[in-house]
Amino acid sequence: MIDFARYDRVRPLRWTGDALEMLDQRKLPFEEVYVRCADHPAVARGIHDLVVRGAPAIGIAAAWGLVLAGRDVRANSGPDALRALRDAVDVLNRARPTAVNLAWALARMGRVLAASGSDWQERLEAEAQAITEEDLAANRRMGELGSDLMVAGSGVLTHCNTGSLATAGFGTALGVIRAGVASGRVERIFAGETRPWLQGARLTVWELLQDGIDSTLVADSAAAHLMASGQVQWVVIGADRICANGDTANKIGSSQLAIVARHYGVKFMVVAPSSTVDMAMESGAGIEIEMRDPAELLGVSGTRTVAEGVRAWNPVFDITPAGLIDVIVTEKGVIEAPDRARMARAFPA
Amino acid sequence: MIDFARYDRVRPLRWTGDALEMLDQRKLPFEEVYVRCADHPAVARGIHDLVVRGAPAIGIAAAWGLVLAGRDVRANSGPDALRALRDAVDVLNRARPTAVNLAWALARMGRVLAASGSDWQERLEAEAQAITEEDLAANRRMGELGSDLMVAGSGVLTHCNTGSLATAGFGTALGVIRAGVASGRVERIFAGETRPWLQGARLTVWELLQDGIDSTLVADSAAAHLMASGQVQWVVIGADRICANGDTANKIGSSQLAIVARHYGVKFMVVAPSSTVDMAMESGAGIEIEMRDPAELLGVSGTRTVAEGVRAWNPVFDITPAGLIDVIVTEKGVIEAPDRARMARAFPA
Repeated sequence: MIDFARYDRVRPLRWTGDALEMLDQRKLPFEEVYVRCADHPAVARGIHDLVVRGAPAIGIAAAWGLVLAGRDVRANSGPDALRALRDAVDVLNRARPTAVNLAWALARMGRVLAASGSDWQERLEAEAQAITEEDLAANRRMGELGSDLMVAGSGVLTHCNTGSLATAGFGTALGVIRAGVASGRVERIFAGETRPWLQGARLTVWELLQDGIDSTLVADSAAAHLMASGQVQWVVIGADRICANGDTANKIGSSQLAIVARHYGVKFMVVAPSSTVDMAMESGAGIEIEMRDPAELLGVSGTRTVAEGVRAWNPVFDITPAGLIDVIVTEKGVIEAPDRARMARAFPA
Repeated sequence: MIDFARYDRVRPLRWTGDALEMLDQRKLPFEEVYVRCADHPAVARGIHDLVVRGAPAIGIAAAWGLVLAGRDVRANSGPDALRALRDAVDVLNRARPTAVNLAWALARMGRVLAASGSDWQERLEAEAQAITEEDLAANRRMGELGSDLMVAGSGVLTHCNTGSLATAGFGTALGVIRAGVASGRVERIFAGETRPWLQGARLTVWELLQDGIDSTLVADSAAAHLMASGQVQWVVIGADRICANGDTANKIGSSQLAIVARHYGVKFMVVAPSSTVDMAMESGAGIEIEMRDPAELLGVSGTRTVAEGVRAWNPVFDITPAGLIDVIVTEKGVIEAPDRARMARAFPA
């Protein structure tokens, strides 16, 4: 039995009973400051301004935002209250329109609201609590399933931040790595810097440090040399969307790692909750890759590094073809050598 | 005929007749300042402190440093002068002991000195001038040879800085790209940032900007997505050492690009002067990869980005196996699908 709590001390969100506190991820790793959000516009601002990031964490924050909105209309009830809540859902949904989990969590809260009577405030709060706890439980389950695939003494390379900071706790890909450390299967952890936002350098290695887990930072471009050196047996990453054929959208750089891993015989694992699986999306060819501001490449943490007048190309995600993925892990189970048939069996319509 | 000068305005070194001026690459791209070196210790400091970088440029700087040393002993001659020059060679050689071209240029100067009579000062200066001019000529020749392999409308991705800044002028890999722009074969240029030193972000795109050549900066981890998008047909890189079997040591990240390029059917070209070829080194397995200070990964341009207590793994180079290289270009010619036999034919003992 894994001692989950021992390896999982960081929480990106804290519900205090009358406010949602967000650990300000923009200030990590140098300041550990929580931003207090006492109403739903404050929650929306926190999501929009990247105080909290990571698709599952954003969804959970939005759910608590709706609880706060519900309290603000507690005096009212009937049509006025519903209208106020619908407005709150809109405000929260607009905070980051591309995050699937945000819309998913708000839709789930909306269904509870629709099915509630006069106890709707209590039921909203209970649902936000359930979303939080289910996410943590799913992550722990994925941690067990994923780390069980590894042999003792394994080295892993991960990318971006998929940890406690990005979820209700424990993490997805980083949860598998945590569980592997706890069970003794993972001996070496390498984290890619993950330009341009440096989530690996700023967040992942910091988060592991809080749990007393040793890890080593590498440049994104050092992955091939690292694999050639024999120090890693698994690449373990998260996912922003998993298609019906197993193609996976994830942070820019993921597909590169998959290609290089296959070249060196290193195994490639994708870890994400089943809410990330989109069986309506046939393949990665249908996913539009978000392009972000080129300015993100023209400096680092606010320090300009590039001459004026230089252009940059800044895609945020890329598509890893299913054929390069050895295993997809969700809380529902493990899909080895994912393809359309195996995905359909694991996620029946 | 390529109008070389039109596309090649930057010079890392200027000989003024009584001093060597070095363009301070540490301050690029924001300040264009030349450091005046009036004696050989100043030249050694400039090399050591990375005022000038790039193996060919370092060799040329050292040659001029020895010219300056020769002037300082002009009053003397005989054994005292020779001893002073030997000391100067030692000082210059120690400036960066790993740069092959530095030792190569100083050995060449030493041979001229040994063969000279009373005209040794003039002959040293003439040799430094010859080393400079031969490097520029070799780069232009490689530019023609390499770009001739491309079809019109090509897109290229390069890594690190292999340009005018790293050589007497024009550049090696970046020289091929320049020549391709001049001849109309290269239509799109992408430069990887090249963590941790950001030579691509700080130097390559700046250098091209000075020549009016449009280029686009990408994160090192965006290369696979870039190739998948069909925008590049060639990866063109330099080399720090080319082995007898064609294995090539180059900036960390190069082997990753070769693996990904092969996956997408993008061609991979290595461009370096023949002085980079080391036929005494059987294969890449024999090359020791220099590990640098992990601190280079813990911040960017002086701004700390990573928490205290985090470890990093910072290899500077990696080995691209010959089997992943489509063509090696030196000033002596083109070697397609390099292997031991083809290398031996191109570089007979």
